[in-house]
Amino acid sequence: MISANQQKFITSLHLKKFRQKYRNFLVEGEKMVKELMQQQQLPVVQLYGTERWATENAALLAPIYHKFNLATEADLKKVGTLTTPNQVLAVVEMPPAAAQLPDLSAVPLALYLDGLQDPGNMGTILRIADWFGIRCVMASPDTVDAYSPKVIQAGMGACLRVRTWEDVPLAALTQQFPRINVLGAVMDGDNVFAATVPNTGILVIGNEGRGIRFEHMGLLTHRITIPRGADNGAESLNAAVATGIIVARLVAG
Amino acid sequence: MISANQQKFITSLHLKKFRQKYRNFLVEGEKMVKELMQQQQLPVVQLYGTERWATENAALLAPIYHKFNLATEADLKKVGTLTTPNQVLAVVEMPPAAAQLPDLSAVPLALYLDGLQDPGNMGTILRIADWFGIRCVMASPDTVDAYSPKVIQAGMGACLRVRTWEDVPLAALTQQFPRINVLGAVMDGDNVFAATVPNTGILVIGNEGRGIRFEHMGLLTHRITIPRGADNGAESLNAAVATGIIVARLVAG
Repeated sequence: MISANQQKFITSLHLKKFRQKYRNFLVEGEKMVKELMQQQQLPVVQLYGTERWATENAALLAPIYHKFNLATEADLKKVGTLTTPNQVLAVVEMPPAAAQLPDLSAVPLALYLDGLQDPGNMGTILRIADWFGIRCVMASPDTVDAYSPKVIQAGMGACLRVRTWEDVPLAALTQQFPRINVLGAVMDGDNVFAATVPNTGILVIGNEGRGIRFEHMGLLTHRITIPRGADNGAESLNAAVATGIIVARLVAG
Repeated sequence: MISANQQKFITSLHLKKFRQKYRNFLVEGEKMVKELMQQQQLPVVQLYGTERWATENAALLAPIYHKFNLATEADLKKVGTLTTPNQVLAVVEMPPAAAQLPDLSAVPLALYLDGLQDPGNMGTILRIADWFGIRCVMASPDTVDAYSPKVIQAGMGACLRVRTWEDVPLAALTQQFPRINVLGAVMDGDNVFAATVPNTGILVIGNEGRGIRFEHMGLLTHRITIPRGADNGAESLNAAVATGIIVARLVAG
C-alpha cells in the first residue's frame, strides 16, 4: 500500500523543483533498481515493489527491508512515470551538490552540455559517457535536469556510474583551467577525424536547435566538424549521435 | 475546414495498416512541408494549413492550390500527431513499393535494420544515412514502419532523400550478392577502428534489446565491436548512436 502522503511525495519528484528541494529522485524498473541496490553507491530512501518482485529479490531486499512497501502494479503506475507495466520503484538520494568544479587536470576528456533540452538526448549522452569511461559530465544552468525520470530511463543506469556537475558556467571552467583544450562541434570546423585534433580536454555539446551558444564560441580552442558524406540537404545530426561519433573518435579512434 | 471524411482519412494514416492500404503518409510542420514542396520528389495528395501559413507561402502554394484546405491550429491538432502547435500538414504519396532488391553492387555502403523497434531510433538512423550520403536503407519485415509519423519527425526530412526498402529478408540479399561484405555490430567482434575492417557492404543494425537475431549471425562476414573505454558496467550503446559511430568510421574515418 502506498499512503496518500507517500503518493504525494513520489509524484512530486516528477518535477525538478521538488527533486532539488528534497535532493531525491526516482529510479524505476527491475533492471535499474537491481543495479542500484547491487552497487550501493546511492542510498535508497524508500522502495516500492510488487509481491512478486519482493519474493524474487528477497536476498537483495533483506538489508533494506525496513524501507520497503508493498505496492500493486496499479499503484506503481499511478505514482510512477513509466507507461509499461512496472514491478518496482525506488526513491534515491542524489549525490551531494558539488561544492567545487571537478579537477579537469585529472581526467583526460570531460563533456560540457551547453543548453541541451531533450531528456532522451541527455540520457543517451550519459550512456555514451558510461560506455567510453568518461567520468565527468558538466552542464550549463539551462540544460535539462540530469535527474529527470526521462533522463534516468534513457540513461539505462548511467546515472549510477557517471557523475554530473550541474549549473556550471563554461567561463568559470576555462578560467580555472586556462590551458585546457576546449573542443566544440560546429558546422565549419576541422574534420574531427584529422590527426591534428587533440583528444583531451572539454568537449562542448551544443543545444539541439541553436548549437553552441554565441558567448561560448570565443572560449573554444578547437572547432571541429563531423564531415558530411554528400552535399545533399541533410542539415544536422541528432545531438546524442554527434556526441557518440566525436567521443568514439577521441577516445577509441 | 477539414470535413469529417477528410478527418477520418488523415487520422487513419496514423496507423500502418491504412498507410499501406492507401500508400499515403503524413508530413507535419512548416520546415518539413516546405522542404517537401521545394524538392517535388514525392507528390503531395492533400495539404492542410492555417491562413497565416498560406499567406506566408503563397508562391510555394500556387502550383498545388487545388489540393489545399484551410485549417485552424485546433483542426491540425485534432487530426495530426504533433503535441506542439502546428501550421501545416501534408498527405504525401509513398514511393512505389520496390519490385526488386536494390543493386548493392552500385552503392558503397548500405544499412540493414534487423528488427529495430523504436521509431525515434529509426528516424535518427535515417538522419545519419542522410548526413553521410548513404542512399540505401533496408529493413527486415519486423522492423518499425519507416513512414510512421514518429519516424518522419525524428528523421527531420531524411525520408525525402533516403530511400527505404521494407520487408527485405537478409538471406535474400546475401543470396543475390554472395560476395558482399556483411558487417554486424556484436559484443565480442573486431575493433571497428582497426584498419582491417572493410568499409563497403551491408552494415546490419540489431534490435534494441536482443541485437542481431541468431539466424542472421551466420550470414555476417565481419563481426565488429565499438571498443569500451572501461570495464565499468555499461552494457550497451543506444542503437542509433552505435550506428552513427560505425557509419562515421566506415564512411569518413
